[in-house]
Formats: sequence, structure tokens, C-alpha cells
Amino acid sequence: MFPKCINDLIDSFKKFPGVGQKSAERMAFSLLYDFDDDDIEAFNNSISSVKNDIKECKICNCITDQELCFVCSDKGRNKDELIVVENAKDVFLLEKIGSFTGYYHVLGGLISPFDDIGPNDIDLKGLFERVKRDNVKEIIFVTKSGIEADTTILYIKKSLDDSDIVISRIANGIPIGADMDYIDSLTLESAFKNRKEVLD
Amino acid sequence: MFPKCINDLIDSFKKFPGVGQKSAERMAFSLLYDFDDDDIEAFNNSISSVKNDIKECKICNCITDQELCFVCSDKGRNKDELIVVENAKDVFLLEKIGSFTGYYHVLGGLISPFDDIGPNDIDLKGLFERVKRDNVKEIIFVTKSGIEADTTILYIKKSLDDSDIVISRIANGIPIGADMDYIDSLTLESAFKNRKEVLD
Repeated sequence: MFPKCINDLIDSFKKFPGVGQKSAERMAFSLLYDFDDDDIEAFNNSISSVKNDIKECKICNCITDQELCFVCSDKGRNKDELIVVENAKDVFLLEKIGSFTGYYHVLGGLISPFDDIGPNDIDLKGLFERVKRDNVKEIIFVTKSGIEADTTILYIKKSLDDSDIVISRIANGIPIGADMDYIDSLTLESAFKNRKEVLD
Repeated sequence: MFPKCINDLIDSFKKFPGVGQKSAERMAFSLLYDFDDDDIEAFNNSISSVKNDIKECKICNCITDQELCFVCSDKGRNKDELIVVENAKDVFLLEKIGSFTGYYHVLGGLISPFDDIGPNDIDLKGLFERVKRDNVKEIIFVTKSGIEADTTILYIKKSLDDSDIVISRIANGIPIGADMDYIDSLTLESAFKNRKEVLD
């Protein structure tokens, strides 16, 4: 029904998360009607550049178009604290909060025996080297919950057992503003276990 | 915070309808992680082709990459009925239903004195020529409701006053499955006015 290039464009848009047939069609028509030649050129250029210019930061594996990412190139941050995340996008999520002043390390995955991802398939080597070199005092593990996260954090803990480094993990619990009706029982159980005494 | 090309890409994605900062960021990261080189090339090519290859059908103004669109090039349809729409995308919306066997005419807009769009700014000339040439029996006006649609349909009706062509318009009413609580009063009024006798 659609001309071939519109069909192709719809297929491309459908590859994005949360974009179904209807949204993809709307986006294709929006490109046709709302984008002028400059917009199209800018769009095409940024798509190409993302693939050509983006590389991993030599220190933390976060994405960057320079040698070092925007965090690692900031020498004024606190080397004592290191947040460990699964993916580069988590770094941006955390930087938006703006309260963390330490550095990050992007593992590029989590240990998952089911998916054949072992300790050598993610950047644990780089993590351990940094921890030693920079004399890191605390590793804060920030990932989604699950068996893979549990395994990875356990592996890190065992590997650093003979150091006096503190390894912590963000809390599971009830999202602020969330209705109790919508909290799953695993989260509720974890939130209950991690209850905090109310002090005056 | 983001590398420049990621920022540019986010800005491009935000131009699409219903895509805010968060969705745009998610799409940019998806492009980075989920698209391989072939996907990127296909995406870039389809974006360029949409702007370069898509033109208006010589008969009905619908979009096509050929001389004639997929409807006008189908000679087996019923020339008696002509659906008039505002935009090309409406044609695809209607063709998905699949029950209409006539042809379409895309006006490319509606008469709107407030926006300085007069009868000569939309393709009424082409419509009147087709109606005469093809001896059209019924024009079915399918657009969103509003003063612009009212004005345009009135203009078409006056212009074809001396012919015996039937001019109809799709019904306003309650969407099937919609909750009465969410129907606005104008729609409800129109649905009430257009009530139909229940026959056995």
C-alpha cells in the first residue's frame, strides 16, 4: 500500500523500543511533512555520526566522542567513590540527578551463566585495575535487580575480599509516589526487610 | 552531558509527534546499541529516499514513488464514488479498512480564512475537473470536524450546485467502545441529532 521507501522507513522506526506499526507510520509521515531539507540532513548526519564517532571512554567504558568521557575528563571529582553500572546510558541517568561526585565504571553487561556471559566477557579486569590504581574506598553497584546482578556483585565482592573496600548496592523498595496496589510482592518483601528506624 | 552527535540525534527525534526528551534519549541509545551497520544504512537510505523519491500522484495528489498512486493506477475501481480528504495519510487510513472501492482526492488542506488559506490554495480545481471528467456520482467528505471542514464542504457544495452529484460527509458520533464519560458535549449533541431509528 505505502510507497517502498515509506515502508522501509516504517520498518526502521519499528526497530526502536516502544514503537509499533501505528507510531512508526505517524513518524514516517511526520518526516515527510514536518522535516525540511535541513532537518533531514541534520537527522541523517547525526545518525551516521553516532555510529562513526561514538567510542568507549578509555577509562570507564562510557560512550564519548573524545578520548575520555565527560566524567573521566573532569579531574575535580572524588576518586574515593565509584559507581558500577551495566550500560553507558545508566551513567547519564545518574548524572541527571547531579548529586554524585565520584566516578563511574561501565561493565558492559552482567555475569549470566544462562546467556554464556562469564566474568571475562564484561569489564571486571578494568574495574579491579582502577580500584587498585585509584585507591577506591567504596564501590556502589547500581543496576536493575535480578539473578545476574546478584551473581556479578557476589563475584566482585569475592574478588576484592582481601581489600577493605566497602561494596554497597542501591536499595530496592517502593518507588516514591507509587500506589501500594501496584507494588509486586518481591519488591514489597525487600522493602520490608530493608525497613529503616524512624529517628527524631 | 551527552556527546554532541547524540545530542543532535535526540533533537531530531524530538521533532516527531509524541516524542519527548526521555523517549528521544531512549531512541538514540537504541540506535547506538540495537542497530547494526546494515540497519543504519537502511535507515539513512529510507530517510533520504522519502524526501527524494516521494511525489504527488498526478491525479489525486496522494503520495507515490511512481507517476500514479496505488489507488489511481488500479483501473478496476468504481469511478462513481470519490472520497475527498485533507491529507495523503488519510487515504492509507481509509484503505486499511478496505471496504471502499472508489477513488480518492487529496485536497492538501482545508479552506481557513484565519490561516489565509483560500479556495485556490488547496486542490479544488483538480477536484472539480475530475468530478466532471469522470462523471462522479457521489463525493464523500472525510476529514476531522471543525469550522475549516464546514467551510470547505460548503464551498464544494455551492460550486457543484448545478450538478446532481450527491455530497455526503462521514458521521460524527460516539466512537465504538468509548465510555460515555469521555465523550465531549459537542460530539454528544451531534450524535443525538444524527440518531437513527432502530428498525427490526
